[in-house]
Amino acid sequence: MDTSTALLTDHYELTMLSSALADGTGDRPCVFEVFARRLPDGRRYGVVAGTARVLDAIADFTFTDAELAQLEATGVVDAQTLAWLADYSFGGDVDGYPEGELYFPGSPIMTVRGSFAEAVVLETLVLSILNHDSAIASAAARMSAAAHGRPIIEMGGRRTHEWAAVAAARAAYLAGFATTSNLEAGRRYGIPTRGTVAHAFMLLHDSEEAAFRAQVDKLGTDTTLLVDTYDITAGIETAVRVAGTELGAIRIDSGDVGVLARKAREQLDALGAKDTRIVVSGDLDEHAIAALRAEPVDAYGVGTSVVTGSGAPTAGMVYKLVEVDGRPVAKRSTHKESRGGRKSAVRRHKPTGTAIDEIIYATDGEAPEFGEHDRPLQIPMLRDGQPVDGLPTLDDARQRLRRGLVSLPWEGLKLSSGEPAVPTVFL
Amino acid sequence: MDTSTALLTDHYELTMLSSALADGTGDRPCVFEVFARRLPDGRRYGVVAGTARVLDAIADFTFTDAELAQLEATGVVDAQTLAWLADYSFGGDVDGYPEGELYFPGSPIMTVRGSFAEAVVLETLVLSILNHDSAIASAAARMSAAAHGRPIIEMGGRRTHEWAAVAAARAAYLAGFATTSNLEAGRRYGIPTRGTVAHAFMLLHDSEEAAFRAQVDKLGTDTTLLVDTYDITAGIETAVRVAGTELGAIRIDSGDVGVLARKAREQLDALGAKDTRIVVSGDLDEHAIAALRAEPVDAYGVGTSVVTGSGAPTAGMVYKLVEVDGRPVAKRSTHKESRGGRKSAVRRHKPTGTAIDEIIYATDGEAPEFGEHDRPLQIPMLRDGQPVDGLPTLDDARQRLRRGLVSLPWEGLKLSSGEPAVPTVFL
Repeated sequence: MDTSTALLTDHYELTMLSSALADGTGDRPCVFEVFARRLPDGRRYGVVAGTARVLDAIADFTFTDAELAQLEATGVVDAQTLAWLADYSFGGDVDGYPEGELYFPGSPIMTVRGSFAEAVVLETLVLSILNHDSAIASAAARMSAAAHGRPIIEMGGRRTHEWAAVAAARAAYLAGFATTSNLEAGRRYGIPTRGTVAHAFMLLHDSEEAAFRAQVDKLGTDTTLLVDTYDITAGIETAVRVAGTELGAIRIDSGDVGVLARKAREQLDALGAKDTRIVVSGDLDEHAIAALRAEPVDAYGVGTSVVTGSGAPTAGMVYKLVEVDGRPVAKRSTHKESRGGRKSAVRRHKPTGTAIDEIIYATDGEAPEFGEHDRPLQIPMLRDGQPVDGLPTLDDARQRLRRGLVSLPWEGLKLSSGEPAVPTVFL
Repeated sequence: MDTSTALLTDHYELTMLSSALADGTGDRPCVFEVFARRLPDGRRYGVVAGTARVLDAIADFTFTDAELAQLEATGVVDAQTLAWLADYSFGGDVDGYPEGELYFPGSPIMTVRGSFAEAVVLETLVLSILNHDSAIASAAARMSAAAHGRPIIEMGGRRTHEWAAVAAARAAYLAGFATTSNLEAGRRYGIPTRGTVAHAFMLLHDSEEAAFRAQVDKLGTDTTLLVDTYDITAGIETAVRVAGTELGAIRIDSGDVGVLARKAREQLDALGAKDTRIVVSGDLDEHAIAALRAEPVDAYGVGTSVVTGSGAPTAGMVYKLVEVDGRPVAKRSTHKESRGGRKSAVRRHKPTGTAIDEIIYATDGEAPEFGEHDRPLQIPMLRDGQPVDGLPTLDDARQRLRRGLVSLPWEGLKLSSGEPAVPTVFL
């Protein structure tokens, strides 16, 4: 793959560009806004994720000879547009909610300002990244909250596209997961990776004992032995015999893991392996994690549910033109109406820190009076196409989300279906 | 992105490798099998997709200095394993269902043979690709069938990860979609791309008429005008006034598109634009498409539902060790049991061509007698790591799927929830 992101784009972005360059409207100063009309069904909050990847992707949104040749050969655009694209790099401004911030229906998650021509071509790429990463982070945050401090390892890479897997690992980590199985996510984002063995390793060996011995010889006793290939009780007995009471952990990947964890804990304790941890995995989602809260489980492995957004695989954000030449604009025909004009947002809180509501107001109009417990939500990200200094890191995002979840009204963390935990109010 | 796919892998593949190299079991000849224990809830068939991408990804599964340095720095593997990985390229055999083939619970979709060491490391990558692409193709096939020959344009790139979008466009095309909006899919796979304008283009201009005029000036009258930005009836009147009765198409993206299409058809006919087509889009899935069958719709634009697998975003396939040193092996503890041994499959048909059942049998045992209407399902794909000659193309896959859908018993194409249309029988 080359590093240009320029063709990760819908055809119509370039047809619009070409028409707008031809009639001169391409130069009009415009404001595009990213927002979600609603949260996924029953969800009480959303989590912004992917922003840092968006900024990187905008920097890589340039047309090399390879992209230009493709566009020329397929006749997607004309010569004037090809020449314009050859010189393209985004030179406008971006503001937005930092990663890890909560969002609600209508929150102005990202604001892109520039000429129509330079801003419209980013639509598809910006949305792909934010819609995917925010969907994963929003699901992962519910799982993290349900786990009540117990660590979760993300291990769903095999259940989603091979590069989506890398972004999903990042989004899950942002939302409080402890580690990932994905090695590329480790390289690219510095996320700690973990892994021991699969059932294949057990079946490869002539006996369970031989497999445990090979693993312990190589990885030491502070490893996780997979005890459910044959008979779990026998497996645990063999595991402790091979590794001793210093055994780091056992993993149970199938069956009724709550019941099995309780039995395993008793057995481990009886064998003297009181510090051996119990890791469970296998089709866990936020509801299964919550149901295991009273069981002696030390860590969760979560796969399919997190990388597929646990029922909400996309965040449904849109990238809408809201201002042209300083005038608010909005589609008006149907239920899919948008509110015109560039907007800012502030979240108001009680003195205790609990969020009350999110006020969304015209940036160029009268700003609401900020109290000491109110917090503006957008930050500057790009100025004249360049990243501003001191953009938040991935760890900043983790901390921001942790604070954000604490600020929710108590019912906001309920896993059941409900209304957005913080109402958005348009001034 | 560099071209190596080697870190698109779970950590534990390499820990297993490292232990198996240390104790000598890594050299044992093994067979891994990819299959799905079940179809997504209520689905009657699955569509294999992604195989060609898997074969490419296996060829790119090599460890360059960059990957080795990362693994060394993070201590994922030891020096012996690093040296082994530096020389790695897959030298085994792969057989499988060609792309576009239907599959059912237990179908041996892909069989990977090689030493444990060389075959185990491919697990994550093979599954990521097949699970994603097959999920999309399986959903897209239902939409294609529901569209009854009317063309569908895939336009969901913005609702999924930016690279998943490219693979999704490919899978949808494989499953009968006519075109895609995704330019990278056009470049990479030669899929025809389409696109005209979004509402932003309408709002950019001082009036709907000005926008239509700009578009027609640039793209000609055989373009698609988006008529639902303000008032649809006024929009259609303006569209025909600007483009004339030669106007190619109008697009309606919101509202009750069935009712609107009927009214639009009457209006276009009354204006003399009898050949102007009507394209509808906006939250369409296979059920919405089916419900529009009686309406005067000429083409569908489908986004979110297809790229998210229409409720089933992953195919749930697994990659299981089924044979070691010629002996069948299988996990035995719980409900997640697998059937050991290398398997082949044949689909039996009535003389009319309708599929009766799929017989899955031990490759090394007695093969069932093939009748003239029976069809073996696996084909050779890699031999000693090299692609065999004449592997099917993307167009072959499209045709294979078309034939496969025709061969289903009539209830197999129903969109409602049901059982697998073709039972799998294990001999």
